[in-house]
Amino acid sequence: MFEVATLGHKLDKKEYETDLPELRTQLLLAQEAVKEANFPVIVLVTGVDGSGKGDVINLLNTWLDPRYVRTHAFSAPGEEERERPPYWRYWMSLTPKGHIGIYVGSWYSDPIARRVKGILNDVELERELTSINTFEEMLVQDGALIIKFWLHLSKDVQKKRMKQLETNQATSWSVTALDKKHLKTYDKFIQIAEATLRETSTGSAPWIIVEATDEHYRNLTVGQHLLERIRYHRDTLKERAVHKPHLHPIAAPELGNHVSVLGKLDLTKSLTKLRYEKQLAKYQGRLGELARLAREKKRSSIVLLEGWDAAGKGGMIRRIIPAMDARQYRIIPIAAPTDEERAQHYLWRFWRHIPRAGKVTIYDRSWYGRVLVERVEGFAHENEWMRAYTEINNFEEQLVEGGIVLVKFWLHISSEEQLVRFKAREQTPFKQYKITEEDYRNRDKWDAYENAINDMVERTSTANAKWHLIEGNDKYHARIKALKIYCDRLERALEKK
Amino acid sequence: MFEVATLGHKLDKKEYETDLPELRTQLLLAQEAVKEANFPVIVLVTGVDGSGKGDVINLLNTWLDPRYVRTHAFSAPGEEERERPPYWRYWMSLTPKGHIGIYVGSWYSDPIARRVKGILNDVELERELTSINTFEEMLVQDGALIIKFWLHLSKDVQKKRMKQLETNQATSWSVTALDKKHLKTYDKFIQIAEATLRETSTGSAPWIIVEATDEHYRNLTVGQHLLERIRYHRDTLKERAVHKPHLHPIAAPELGNHVSVLGKLDLTKSLTKLRYEKQLAKYQGRLGELARLAREKKRSSIVLLEGWDAAGKGGMIRRIIPAMDARQYRIIPIAAPTDEERAQHYLWRFWRHIPRAGKVTIYDRSWYGRVLVERVEGFAHENEWMRAYTEINNFEEQLVEGGIVLVKFWLHISSEEQLVRFKAREQTPFKQYKITEEDYRNRDKWDAYENAINDMVERTSTANAKWHLIEGNDKYHARIKALKIYCDRLERALEKK
Repeated sequence: MFEVATLGHKLDKKEYETDLPELRTQLLLAQEAVKEANFPVIVLVTGVDGSGKGDVINLLNTWLDPRYVRTHAFSAPGEEERERPPYWRYWMSLTPKGHIGIYVGSWYSDPIARRVKGILNDVELERELTSINTFEEMLVQDGALIIKFWLHLSKDVQKKRMKQLETNQATSWSVTALDKKHLKTYDKFIQIAEATLRETSTGSAPWIIVEATDEHYRNLTVGQHLLERIRYHRDTLKERAVHKPHLHPIAAPELGNHVSVLGKLDLTKSLTKLRYEKQLAKYQGRLGELARLAREKKRSSIVLLEGWDAAGKGGMIRRIIPAMDARQYRIIPIAAPTDEERAQHYLWRFWRHIPRAGKVTIYDRSWYGRVLVERVEGFAHENEWMRAYTEINNFEEQLVEGGIVLVKFWLHISSEEQLVRFKAREQTPFKQYKITEEDYRNRDKWDAYENAINDMVERTSTANAKWHLIEGNDKYHARIKALKIYCDRLERALEKK
Repeated sequence: MFEVATLGHKLDKKEYETDLPELRTQLLLAQEAVKEANFPVIVLVTGVDGSGKGDVINLLNTWLDPRYVRTHAFSAPGEEERERPPYWRYWMSLTPKGHIGIYVGSWYSDPIARRVKGILNDVELERELTSINTFEEMLVQDGALIIKFWLHLSKDVQKKRMKQLETNQATSWSVTALDKKHLKTYDKFIQIAEATLRETSTGSAPWIIVEATDEHYRNLTVGQHLLERIRYHRDTLKERAVHKPHLHPIAAPELGNHVSVLGKLDLTKSLTKLRYEKQLAKYQGRLGELARLAREKKRSSIVLLEGWDAAGKGGMIRRIIPAMDARQYRIIPIAAPTDEERAQHYLWRFWRHIPRAGKVTIYDRSWYGRVLVERVEGFAHENEWMRAYTEINNFEEQLVEGGIVLVKFWLHISSEEQLVRFKAREQTPFKQYKITEEDYRNRDKWDAYENAINDMVERTSTANAKWHLIEGNDKYHARIKALKIYCDRLERALEKK
C-alpha cells in the first residue's frame, strides 16, 4: 500500500515556484465555489512523524482565505470532553457548510494510538474503524466532501529527517521524546496504519497517500488534490442532488384488525386528584434523592419528550424539574433551527446539548422530528428519513455506551381529547398564544402521524433506548407514570455501577 | 423494536381468502418484471422458533413460478464448506439475476447462534454484523433487491404454539429438542436478535418485522411486502441506473519526476541459461516438498498472475506446475465470463474456484481485471471500479483469514520488449493465434494502464496480500524470482501453523 509513496517522488524548487501562483489562484476560486455551493470540506492531514503535517497545514492556511478555514487539532481529551461520549468533540468541531475544516490529529489518531499501545486488539480496532466509516458516510450523505491525506516517509527517510530536525536549532523543539519512541515502533505503526487505511478507504471517502520525502512535491501534490476534489464535488453537486439512492419507505399493509402501538394504549387510565398529589410528592422526593446520587456518581441522563400537540409535555416537565437543583438540569426546547444549526448535519444541534457527567438534559421535542414532522410534512426527503432510523440508533448507542441514562417518552392522547384541549386553550387568555391554525391543520394528518409513530417505535425502541408510551388523556396518570419510570430507570442505572 | 409485532395483529380467514387470489396474480406479474428487468431478489425468512418460517417458505414456493425460484437452507457447514472461507457457501448459493432466492437460515443464523451459545462476545458479534452489512451493501450496489423478514412471536405465544405443535400428532415431529432449548433462552435470544436487527437494518436493506401470531395475517403481510418491494425496485431501476453516486476517480497529479512503481523496476536483471537451469531444478524441488507439506497440513494457496500481454504468464505457470501433483492444483484462465457468470456479481466467478483445504488455484488473470482492463477500456463505470478496490480488499481479507496463502504477481516488461515479442509471435506458426489487432491497440493505452497498475498496487498491496512485482524482460530471471517468492511465502505460512 505504501510502496507507491516510497519511490522518491520529487519536484524542483524552480518548477514548484513556477506552478505555485496558479495553484493558489485556483484554490481561492475553489474556495469561492465551496461558499457558493454551500457544502463543508473536511480535510484530514495525517501520516508518519516527521512528514511535515504541521508545515502542510501552515501552508494551506496561507494559501486559503482564512475567513472560511478553521484548523482543529486534537490531543488527549480534556475534562469537558471526557465527560461526554468520545465523538462529542468531533461533532463540536464539525465544519459548517461553505467552510473548509483542516484536521490534524482527527478521529483516526486515538484508535491508531491505542492499537499501537496495545490497549485495543485487532477486533476492537476494527470496531472503531467501523464507527469511523459510519460517521464519515453519514457526513458524505449529508453533502460533505471529505479529503483524507496520509503523508508518508519510508523508515530510512524518517530517521534521517528526525536527525536533521534535531540537529537544527530552529527545529529541534519539534522532535519530542514521543516522536523518537514512535520511530522505534515504526514497523508496528505502519502495519496498523495500513490496516486502518485499508478498512477506511471507502469509495466516498478514500485515502490519498502522498510521498513526503520531498517537500515541494508533497506540498504541490496536496494542493492539487485539494483543488481537484473540490472541483469534482462542485461539478457533480447538481446531479448528486437530483439523484437519490431510492430507499424504499416500507409501510405495513393495512390488513385485518390493523392495530398500532398507540391504539393498544388504555386511555381511560386515570388518578384522582388526591391520589395524584400524594404520589407526586412521593416520586418527586424519590427523584430528588436519585438525582443527587446520580450527580455524585457522575451518571448523566437525558429525558426526551415527544407527543401530540397539547399532550401535556410542558406540564410534565414542570413536574420533573422541582425535584432537581437548578444547576443540574437544562431544558432544551426544539423549535426551528438557528442559522448556525442549519449549516450543520441535523444531529449536530442535539449533540451540542449532551449533558456533562452527572447532569441532566431534558429535550422538549427532539431528533425524532426527522422521522415525525419532517417525514409527514415532506420537509425531509424519504431517503433522509429512512436513513435517519439508523443514524438515530447509532447516535443513541453512543449516548448509552457513554453511560448516559436515556429515557424516551411518547405522550399519547386521543384525537378527541386533543380537540377538547385546543378549545380550552382558546378560552384561556394566557394559553391562547399556544394555539394556531397550524395546530388544526396538523390534526388532519393524524393517521399519517400515527403510522410514523408506529414505525418510529418499531425501528428505534431498543433494549437500551426503549420508548415509554404514556397514556395522557388523564394528566395526573401521565405525570406519575413518567416520573415513576424516570425514577426506576435512574435507580437501575445507579445500582449497576 | 418488537413491540409492534406483539399487538395481536390478525386477519379473518374469509378476508384472507378474498384477498389471496389477487395477491397471487400480482406476485406472478411481479416475477415477470423481475425476469424482464433482470435483477436478483434475495428473500430472507427468519425469526423466532414456531413462527412458521417453513410454512411461509412453502407458501411462497406455491405462489411463485417455481422455475425462477430457488430455496436455500443452511445448517451446520459440511466438509466442502468448512474447507473454505465462511462466506463461500453464501456466494455459491447467490441468486442470479432474474431469479428469486429464498433463504431460510441465512448468513444471520450462524452469528446469532454463536452469540447465544457464548462463542462470540458482543464485540465479535458486531464484527460479524459489519461483515454482513458490507456483503449486503455490495449486492445492493450491484443491483440486487434484498428483503429481510423477521417473523415474530411473543414469549407466551411461542410457548403456546410449541405445545400445540407437540400435542398434534401430525406436527409433533417439527418440535425438536433444540427448539425447546431455545424456548428456555427466549429472552437472551430476543436481546441478541434485537441487537442484530438494529445493526443490520440499513436504509438499503431494512428488516421487516412481521407478527406471526395469526397465520393469515402473517402470510398475507409477507406476500404484500414482497410485492411492494419488487414493484418499487422495478419502478426506480431506471433512475438508479442513470444516477450513479459519483465517486471521484482519484489520480495523482503529474508532477516532478513522476515515477511509478513499474518505472522503478530494474528490467536489466537477468540470468544465464546455465544458472537458470540450476536454479529452476532447485526451486521446483523445493516447491514440490512444500506443496506436499501444505497438502498434509491442509494449507491452500492461490497464485494469481497479472501482467502485460506477452509478459510470460503462460510460461511461468508451466514452470510452477511440474512441481505439484496434478490432483493438487487447478489453473483458471480468466477470459470473457459465461452466461451464468454474467448473471452474478463480478466476484462470483472467482469465489467459485476458491481451493479446498490443501489445494492450489492458479488464476491466469483475475478479479483485478475490474480495475485494469475494465477501468481503462471503460467497460466498468468509474463508480464500479472505484468501489472495486474496497470489494477486492475485503474479498482477499476473507481468503487470508480463511488460511489461504495468497500470492499475487505482476509480470512487468517494457513496451519495447513487448513489441519484440509480438513480432516474434507473428513469426512462430504455433504462436500466431495468440496475437491479434487488439493486442496492438492495447499498446496505445500503455500509459493509462500504467496509471491503473500504480493505483492498484497503492490500494490493494497489503501486508497479507502483497503485490510482488516481477521484472520480466528476462524470462529466466522472472521465473526464478516468482518461484522463489512462492516457495518463501509457503514456507513462512507452514512454519506459522
